[in-house]
Amino acid sequence: MACDRTREILEGVASGRVSVDDAMLGLRMMPFEDLGFAKVDHHREVRQGVPEVVYGAGKTADQISSIVSAMLDRGVRTVLVTRLDGDKASEVARTVPLRFDHVSRIGVAGEVPGPGTTGCITVVSAGTSDMPVAEEAAVTAEVLGNRVVRVYDVGVAGIHRLLSHSDELMSSRVVIAVAGMEGALASVVGGIVDCPVIAVPTSVGYGASFGGLAALLTMMNSCASGVGVVNIDNGFGAGYLASMINRMGPPE
Amino acid sequence: MACDRTREILEGVASGRVSVDDAMLGLRMMPFEDLGFAKVDHHREVRQGVPEVVYGAGKTADQISSIVSAMLDRGVRTVLVTRLDGDKASEVARTVPLRFDHVSRIGVAGEVPGPGTTGCITVVSAGTSDMPVAEEAAVTAEVLGNRVVRVYDVGVAGIHRLLSHSDELMSSRVVIAVAGMEGALASVVGGIVDCPVIAVPTSVGYGASFGGLAALLTMMNSCASGVGVVNIDNGFGAGYLASMINRMGPPE
Amino acid sequence: MACDRTREILEGVASGRVSVDDAMLGLRMMPFEDLGFAKVDHHREVRQGVPEVVYGAGKTADQISSIVSAMLDRGVRTVLVTRLDGDKASEVARTVPLRFDHVSRIGVAGEVPGPGTTGCITVVSAGTSDMPVAEEAAVTAEVLGNRVVRVYDVGVAGIHRLLSHSDELMSSRVVIAVAGMEGALASVVGGIVDCPVIAVPTSVGYGASFGGLAALLTMMNSCASGVGVVNIDNGFGAGYLASMINRMGPPE
Amino acid sequence: MACDRTREILEGVASGRVSVDDAMLGLRMMPFEDLGFAKVDHHREVRQGVPEVVYGAGKTADQISSIVSAMLDRGVRTVLVTRLDGDKASEVARTVPLRFDHVSRIGVAGEVPGPGTTGCITVVSAGTSDMPVAEEAAVTAEVLGNRVVRVYDVGVAGIHRLLSHSDELMSSRVVIAVAGMEGALASVVGGIVDCPVIAVPTSVGYGASFGGLAALLTMMNSCASGVGVVNIDNGFGAGYLASMINRMGPPE
Amino acid sequence: MACDRTREILEGVASGRVSVDDAMLGLRMMPFEDLGFAKVDHHREVRQGVPEVVYGAGKTADQISSIVSAMLDRGVRTVLVTRLDGDKASEVARTVPLRFDHVSRIGVAGEVPGPGTTGCITVVSAGTSDMPVAEEAAVTAEVLGNRVVRVYDVGVAGIHRLLSHSDELMSSRVVIAVAGMEGALASVVGGIVDCPVIAVPTSVGYGASFGGLAALLTMMNSCASGVGVVNIDNGFGAGYLASMINRMGPPE
Amino acid sequence: MACDRTREILEGVASGRVSVDDAMLGLRMMPFEDLGFAKVDHHREVRQGVPEVVYGAGKTADQISSIVSAMLDRGVRTVLVTRLDGDKASEVARTVPLRFDHVSRIGVAGEVPGPGTTGCITVVSAGTSDMPVAEEAAVTAEVLGNRVVRVYDVGVAGIHRLLSHSDELMSSRVVIAVAGMEGALASVVGGIVDCPVIAVPTSVGYGASFGGLAALLTMMNSCASGVGVVNIDNGFGAGYLASMINRMGPPE
Amino acid sequence: MACDRTREILEGVASGRVSVDDAMLGLRMMPFEDLGFAKVDHHREVRQGVPEVVYGAGKTADQISSIVSAMLDRGVRTVLVTRLDGDKASEVARTVPLRFDHVSRIGVAGEVPGPGTTGCITVVSAGTSDMPVAEEAAVTAEVLGNRVVRVYDVGVAGIHRLLSHSDELMSSRVVIAVAGMEGALASVVGGIVDCPVIAVPTSVGYGASFGGLAALLTMMNSCASGVGVVNIDNGFGAGYLASMINRMGPPE
Amino acid sequence: MACDRTREILEGVASGRVSVDDAMLGLRMMPFEDLGFAKVDHHREVRQGVPEVVYGAGKTADQISSIVSAMLDRGVRTVLVTRLDGDKASEVARTVPLRFDHVSRIGVAGEVPGPGTTGCITVVSAGTSDMPVAEEAAVTAEVLGNRVVRVYDVGVAGIHRLLSHSDELMSSRVVIAVAGMEGALASVVGGIVDCPVIAVPTSVGYGASFGGLAALLTMMNSCASGVGVVNIDNGFGAGYLASMINRMGPPE
Repeated sequence: MACDRTREILEGVASGRVSVDDAMLGLRMMPFEDLGFAKVDHHREVRQGVPEVVYGAGKTADQISSIVSAMLDRGVRTVLVTRLDGDKASEVARTVPLRFDHVSRIGVAGEVPGPGTTGCITVVSAGTSDMPVAEEAAVTAEVLGNRVVRVYDVGVAGIHRLLSHSDELMSSRVVIAVAGMEGALASVVGGIVDCPVIAVPTSVGYGASFGGLAALLTMMNSCASGVGVVNIDNGFGAGYLASMINRMGPPE
Repeated sequence: MACDRTREILEGVASGRVSVDDAMLGLRMMPFEDLGFAKVDHHREVRQGVPEVVYGAGKTADQISSIVSAMLDRGVRTVLVTRLDGDKASEVARTVPLRFDHVSRIGVAGEVPGPGTTGCITVVSAGTSDMPVAEEAAVTAEVLGNRVVRVYDVGVAGIHRLLSHSDELMSSRVVIAVAGMEGALASVVGGIVDCPVIAVPTSVGYGASFGGLAALLTMMNSCASGVGVVNIDNGFGAGYLASMINRMGPPE
Repeated sequence: MACDRTREILEGVASGRVSVDDAMLGLRMMPFEDLGFAKVDHHREVRQGVPEVVYGAGKTADQISSIVSAMLDRGVRTVLVTRLDGDKASEVARTVPLRFDHVSRIGVAGEVPGPGTTGCITVVSAGTSDMPVAEEAAVTAEVLGNRVVRVYDVGVAGIHRLLSHSDELMSSRVVIAVAGMEGALASVVGGIVDCPVIAVPTSVGYGASFGGLAALLTMMNSCASGVGVVNIDNGFGAGYLASMINRMGPPE
Repeated sequence: MACDRTREILEGVASGRVSVDDAMLGLRMMPFEDLGFAKVDHHREVRQGVPEVVYGAGKTADQISSIVSAMLDRGVRTVLVTRLDGDKASEVARTVPLRFDHVSRIGVAGEVPGPGTTGCITVVSAGTSDMPVAEEAAVTAEVLGNRVVRVYDVGVAGIHRLLSHSDELMSSRVVIAVAGMEGALASVVGGIVDCPVIAVPTSVGYGASFGGLAALLTMMNSCASGVGVVNIDNGFGAGYLASMINRMGPPE
Repeated sequence: MACDRTREILEGVASGRVSVDDAMLGLRMMPFEDLGFAKVDHHREVRQGVPEVVYGAGKTADQISSIVSAMLDRGVRTVLVTRLDGDKASEVARTVPLRFDHVSRIGVAGEVPGPGTTGCITVVSAGTSDMPVAEEAAVTAEVLGNRVVRVYDVGVAGIHRLLSHSDELMSSRVVIAVAGMEGALASVVGGIVDCPVIAVPTSVGYGASFGGLAALLTMMNSCASGVGVVNIDNGFGAGYLASMINRMGPPE
Repeated sequence: MACDRTREILEGVASGRVSVDDAMLGLRMMPFEDLGFAKVDHHREVRQGVPEVVYGAGKTADQISSIVSAMLDRGVRTVLVTRLDGDKASEVARTVPLRFDHVSRIGVAGEVPGPGTTGCITVVSAGTSDMPVAEEAAVTAEVLGNRVVRVYDVGVAGIHRLLSHSDELMSSRVVIAVAGMEGALASVVGGIVDCPVIAVPTSVGYGASFGGLAALLTMMNSCASGVGVVNIDNGFGAGYLASMINRMGPPE
Repeated sequence: MACDRTREILEGVASGRVSVDDAMLGLRMMPFEDLGFAKVDHHREVRQGVPEVVYGAGKTADQISSIVSAMLDRGVRTVLVTRLDGDKASEVARTVPLRFDHVSRIGVAGEVPGPGTTGCITVVSAGTSDMPVAEEAAVTAEVLGNRVVRVYDVGVAGIHRLLSHSDELMSSRVVIAVAGMEGALASVVGGIVDCPVIAVPTSVGYGASFGGLAALLTMMNSCASGVGVVNIDNGFGAGYLASMINRMGPPE
Repeated sequence: MACDRTREILEGVASGRVSVDDAMLGLRMMPFEDLGFAKVDHHREVRQGVPEVVYGAGKTADQISSIVSAMLDRGVRTVLVTRLDGDKASEVARTVPLRFDHVSRIGVAGEVPGPGTTGCITVVSAGTSDMPVAEEAAVTAEVLGNRVVRVYDVGVAGIHRLLSHSDELMSSRVVIAVAGMEGALASVVGGIVDCPVIAVPTSVGYGASFGGLAALLTMMNSCASGVGVVNIDNGFGAGYLASMINRMGPPE
């Protein structure tokens, strides 16, 4: 695609329709727009085939509104805003139509795709406190068009709870395992299923959990094969990667 | 499948062919065999659909030979032995037919599947010293039946080298990014492609690389979406996970 | 006991049989003997009711022989030497009768108590490479007079292996869970049994296992109740603590 | 017990009273109840013989009330809520009868077992600031039916204070040693008594105490035998494990 | 210069104009003034050829006002106050004329040098949240008399954004690369340009970014040559060092 | 002294004036008093020859008042309360006469010893923000009867400031070096003076100072001989140790 | 330059001399050559104006010889091989003319530029053991055409040694400060000079130096302005960056 | 003294005997001598009143011989070489008369001062493996002219061993406490004695001792007052500092 555009420009040059100077300028300038404080890449939705995502933490409601508006104006169909707190969401919603989910802290502007009907991503979480991260993953996956099954509160300290869901787990195409504290859930799940497992350590815990470091190291060292790990509390990243995998067509 | 076996046993009980005591025993005992020092799980190949893997480091040549023999005797078609050094490989090869690759330090016993012809996993690595880990990933993926493209020595400090391979990268179904030192390769690759990226930090480096910790943290914090991380130097894990993703059929 | 001895001295003083100066000296001097490089505490066997233990690492064969001899001369019935390598064991065995076990690296001098017949300590380990530590725990517990059941190579990545041993686990009085890498075994075992679990992280692993730190943190953060943790690779400590618990009489 | 239930189901199948499908369903579904946000395991009290415990931190008063009510409705006799602050406790107490202890931050709903009369757990703590954690351990042990002796403010920097309590210590069946800062208390206590010692590092301290890490490492490295460590500030875990040990009957 | 002053004093002594005692005193006492709580070094502007800098964090508005006044009274032309929040700035501005920039949190008292017209420092930053640090660097460099070009929001996860600015980058004399999260920007920029790169890790991020540690390690391990790193969030330090380099005359 | 008391008791027993039971009780019980929440050791002032110290952080004003009152009632002449904030100090001062110093956050109850007139402790600090810790050290030393010289704001980045105080430094009997950030002050001072240097790392700094860890490591690694280090921000500990050294009489 | 080449290609396309396909190919393929195990970038010397550098550690003598030969064959005038041990150097020297320096462990193939005559880089080091790193920096700078002054063994614990070299330091255009242990040298030097300081932490030390981490943190936290830090032991990187700065022409 | 020399030079200038140029040169050049690889500071013995010390680790036997010879030639009476292994000691002894102690690994050249007769330093160590570090401290203190008492193998896990030496401890002027593993010895000793305690963490231990870090943190966090800490394994530093304190005269 980037290749196509390059070719188009080169062909323009070859045919004399495009000057050399314009060609050099063209490759660089088109896909950006300057909002004063941030460059929005309208190119990305096309390039990566997914809705645009705005990381809400550390941005003011005004900044978020501006970015989202600019995106919608340029034809982006769906914009996800993650790590959004309720107050900012209300403020943003005054200028931009926004659906907001309090548990996952995700706001969606524009068209909300219906959840997919084929393939299945299962989100498994260890404890009640891990739910915001689990929901960030689940809602992200749903907005990206996937069917999602939730299996929550099934930590390994009561392994029979987890095992009672073996059917859901074994019929998934991708599993997202969300756990804080000791983070052992990913290993156990990885040993049960034969599909990719995306492990999300959470900062839930106290003492020697060191803000999620313990769970992160546990997941990194998982003896189970087929496990990839994302950053602590990064539910969005897990949902996005799981969607990418679930929506793959068959190899050509 | 475990479900099928449970059902089979339950149906045996229902029909009177199987006693209750035998049923209780049956579920637990069949898939194991006791070698004295390690229980080999012949069940796994069926359950997970892949060749059996033996982690060679920390095992003697004798232990490895025994495990591999037992597996082959029970009908496992292919056994991978990872983290095998040359001397142990020679010793193992005396009792078990073993093909050994010096760069990836992988030995293969039994039938070696021809590399796949459809779909494509690209292994990208940052420096010459990362090659053993990159090859562990590449050979693993090949033995598991995937077509593999290698793009080596394309660290981000000379970004044009990496970009000159954009075509290979963008036509991959999965990319494995292998890098030590600062580990920035995964982020850059993740920003170029729109397929899953498996990031492998390596222990290559000195000083503040702290045995791969720097690269691990970099990859964990990647701003690019669609990146999952495996353990430091875990080429096998990356190859295995990439294969799992590449070989997925279309969602039902 | 220390109280009894104090009382005895005070009564000696009261009756005039013991001078004040001798009383002051007496309390301090008796239970020690000076070997030049280490003070052996012959008092401890009496005080704690267990054989004497010598930590072999970092001591020369000569130092070990002298300490063991001095102990046996003073009437200690059984001396355990831990972290002993084969060469040192042979050298020590020239001057002191010593039974040496190569896997657990434990040498026993003096009388070897027969394994106990009542109560049961189960040692569970995750992988083949954890065996030296698991055996250090198991042999320690046996020498201290306990009945020991070994359940090895049952890591959580193949949870069905572990579950097939539920009976042994649930009929134990104490379980010792030995695991490196991600160390999740302790949590899973802790959720199955309703007896104390002693968790032993091991230094087995690579990359982000950081010499056992990952397993240590996992075990520290275990969501399961009833789990106590000892130092990395400290099989002896686990066996000793498990024995202390197993051999408790009923509360008065 | 789980075995009994399996046998019961299998016998139902054998006798024709239970269909195969129902049998498969039965093993998994019965012991759970879905509250919308958390699955309460009514099975656990039976399985582990202790009151149910709810970790209060990170849950709203509403969530706690719902969980506790559901438990009491199902016949659980005693529910402990740990890490509860005063405000939440008042709110919960509006809908559920709750006795609340401000120092240990523990709430108890349902029947409060009288403290036990036989056997003795001694809780030793180093400083005044460690008291909340020490009390969490002590109250937990009392609610679980144990007799508890408190020996507070006996840090090792004034070793004679600790030694003046040798009698209490030496007549305990289990000792819980609670200490922040340098955490040396566990080693000293472990050298005095010949019973199991549960060490609890606390986050009390400043500077290089790094939130309890210093005390945790100290306790991990204790030279004394018979010491098991729980997570930083985990008074509940220590009380629970100590109770498990204290209430053991004699070995069969 | 210090040399000149020493020579001057020695010549005074040689000529008899200065007594030995006065000479000893003179070298030490002149360049200081005691404000009661801090010694202001009026000597430094001369010695290092740059405006005086006051680190505002952890000082009260009163302390800042006193220090700045004292400096201006002694003839310092320009005083920079860094890490100043808006409230303190308003308070300081009541007693000292102060221009305050809200994004960079820098206040300038005294004469503000016009931005330089020759040479060019480019400040590149990865994300919107890195802007305060980037601006601290940019404004510092401008106040020190440099021409500054800003290229913001060009993280490596969208490498084409960065590359579209190759011209600015390659015509810079010094580049300041500001990035949190994985901090890969410095390596990529270092591979594109052939001028010194000052890398500034920021504390922007979450989870395994550990307050900027991940970005710091990444930059330390950069494979690109010509990169020097300053402390996390130290925009001032980067701007100062970049200015020092940019303003160098040709070697003699 | 403890020896004297033991002898006294033993002589009582020898003479028949003291029963054996009373003797056993006597050694342990006398020097303590139970306040309900903390045991005050009236023994310590005698034993160590210094005023009693109460660590104020983490204690309520009520607890502090009770402890201080109890001490004064028992004849302690001077009580230091450290880490006291202004509000608590006011509250304590309602029930106990207390002189409070806002910079060092030290309160003194009872008799305030005049500053000593012989020997000299110099407190050197690197920056204005280190002053609270430096003053905690200085005031502690003064209350303990030492003459104290303060040399503040002499960080090593302007080495001439420090050197201009060489005379004070070289005529000290003990130097306390207080520094955050990079903590290099202790090394430089240690190379100038030939008396003991007590180094105090402070938590002053940002980014890679990691709460004082950087300064702590620097001081630990000091190449200068004669340097001992105390905990981060532990001004009291430094003042106490320095006093102990300064007040030593000549060796017998 | 990359821009020039792009323009050249575009102009070829515009004039019809270059086909579109060739143009697309051309931009990517030219500057690389495939050696089987590593891609050598002949482009870099031109692009960055400096000799080519090969990192010798972790490469075999054969690999080094091949890479160096390929470079010389393509017209690279000077090749530096860093981190080369004596044995490998001898082996490489059999096939490629190589001058080897044992202290800095640097080999130079091809033309060795005479040391520069204008401008001056001073390399300052703290201890004798830091010399290999200091020499790596010094020799690198010399090979890159700079005049280098060495001031070794001037650690801050004997500050007068360092100060006796104030003249050399203050007349430098760039200073490289090399130090292990506590690494305070960079701060002190940074406070003396008014030119850029490149700080190199070394792994020299023991105990709490943690392989150079202590020195790295010290340098990161330096209070002195104008200090940039490179990786632990990275003498080459420091020499390279210093050369880049020293050889800058005046701003246009 | 440095002051005296400065005065002398200034008086020379005042009297016309010394030129200004010579004066400037004089202050800097005299006290150094260039050995090619290290500058020996003959000034230090005078300045600090103690024998010269050479850190032997990381220096060749030749380098050590040259340094020691140069020192003796210049009139230094006693040279200590620390961290010397036996082989190097033999080699050095060929060219320089050297007494070598195998346990402390200290070599002494020149005059060995008889041990002092007044005042007393007690060296206490926890375990047999800590002896080399304890002896480095003890021998250092003896060579510096102090009377030394050794109390070894008295770890806190057998607190009565330590307490039986209360008399030695309480009659010391300085105590050096040497301990690895959990390092609790310093706190307990600090609570017993009322003299300065120098704490030396050692790298003895395994697992979570992390090379002495656990002991270091324990000692840093000691609740006992009057404790200063030196680097891990730094027996020399402790002996030196203890000597400095013990040999202090009374305050003037």
